[in-house]
Amino acid sequence: MAGRLAIVAGSGGLPLRLHEAHPDAYCVTLAGTPHELPEGVVHTHRPERLGELFEDLRDHDVTDVVMAGAMARPKLEPSALDAVTAKVAPALMAAMQQGDDGLLRHVIALFEDRGFTVVGAHELVVGLTVPAGMLCGIAPDSAATLDVEFGLDILSALSPLDLGQATVVAGGLCLGIETLQGTDALLEQAAGTPTHKRPEAPGVLVKLPKRGQDLRVDMPAIGPATIEGARRAGLGGIVIAADRVLVLEREATLAAAREAGLFVQALDV
Amino acid sequence: MAGRLAIVAGSGGLPLRLHEAHPDAYCVTLAGTPHELPEGVVHTHRPERLGELFEDLRDHDVTDVVMAGAMARPKLEPSALDAVTAKVAPALMAAMQQGDDGLLRHVIALFEDRGFTVVGAHELVVGLTVPAGMLCGIAPDSAATLDVEFGLDILSALSPLDLGQATVVAGGLCLGIETLQGTDALLEQAAGTPTHKRPEAPGVLVKLPKRGQDLRVDMPAIGPATIEGARRAGLGGIVIAADRVLVLEREATLAAAREAGLFVQALDV
Repeated sequence: MAGRLAIVAGSGGLPLRLHEAHPDAYCVTLAGTPHELPEGVVHTHRPERLGELFEDLRDHDVTDVVMAGAMARPKLEPSALDAVTAKVAPALMAAMQQGDDGLLRHVIALFEDRGFTVVGAHELVVGLTVPAGMLCGIAPDSAATLDVEFGLDILSALSPLDLGQATVVAGGLCLGIETLQGTDALLEQAAGTPTHKRPEAPGVLVKLPKRGQDLRVDMPAIGPATIEGARRAGLGGIVIAADRVLVLEREATLAAAREAGLFVQALDV
Repeated sequence: MAGRLAIVAGSGGLPLRLHEAHPDAYCVTLAGTPHELPEGVVHTHRPERLGELFEDLRDHDVTDVVMAGAMARPKLEPSALDAVTAKVAPALMAAMQQGDDGLLRHVIALFEDRGFTVVGAHELVVGLTVPAGMLCGIAPDSAATLDVEFGLDILSALSPLDLGQATVVAGGLCLGIETLQGTDALLEQAAGTPTHKRPEAPGVLVKLPKRGQDLRVDMPAIGPATIEGARRAGLGGIVIAADRVLVLEREATLAAAREAGLFVQALDV
């Protein structure tokens, strides 16, 4: 890294993890996005004033930027726009209509066009992703393996549409496909399946990056909340892509999975 | 029709509609499935005793069978199986693992193998489906049309997997894809989208048959509950396939749509 790192903090525990691993990094966030960093540490910018954000980063000798955690899609107040934001806002708002990938590619370009290098959280903290293998529990049996394969087929069919980062499959039937609302909402939907419609097989959550998803800013993740959601949905286990899905709070996550009797498997897919 | 018609009644208003149009039809249902037919009219059979069901139909000179409304996936009590059910149960249970299409194709074959003709509700009651055109409201504008097209792409991608009879799209983003739980659950999911993730566009529900779906026993449908769900989800309208989606209780459905300010459009797709 040539100069200083900046952490652009979104929601969840990842920004804190990065801050701990890189205590000298300069931390910023956008107003309206909840974050878990200590208040004294983080500098909040308004999404309408990106010019000030870029200037602030330059003033602090930032050369590299990591975006971590989910950012809220900002509602921009037109009267508050600074010159930089006014210039990029129309394209940014058009990108917001294109799903996560389109928007994030656009946001990466905003930083890169100004000379910043955008790096992924998994490049900055060792052990955020996992290699192929069983992380806990017993490998899925042949019925569960069929469910995993069906899940992979579903995600593969939707991937060209920038959709379907996760799905829940049980006994050959799909109990949910992740959309805008995210994985926790997907698991809640699966948990709410009426008993008379519910297959007897416990089912699996399958979670992967979409094809072409830029892992620097939008790597899929599982964490303790995923385990809790899977447990409430009565699932048998969770399958993620090896090396391409973050396992947040790994010890707590795997301890919770063991406690819940869930297997967690990373697959080379 | 050579002989007498039997209505195999599932849930919803369609069996009653068929009964009104064909008052001489013999009405049966399976225990465990809620139905709206008057109790005196309908003969309930246990799903474990399909031999008795077929015999009952023959005893009443039934030649043609219409299956109407959703049937619960039965949990079979092994000790109660009659000879016919014991023979077909293993294949039936395997078919249950294959999604709706696999199961329903199997159920149709059960009747056809015994000499019954399986007919679709839309062949027995005039006006259950609608030709292409606006049913109510103003045709979708160009932004809503893009959402409709994205919805069609999503359903088309999932159709080979026997998935995705409906989806909700708003402002280029997918707010939900129908799975096992059905359209009402999909609309509830869309309604529950957190405000900060919700695009500004109201969005559309797109509902079509899956490719290869047997319309005799599993025609997609909309009705007053669909309108109510779409209203609660804040949608702008509903798009269905012309001639291939049932519009149940058409007057009430369209009156509710007008009341809610929703457009309803049937497309040749």
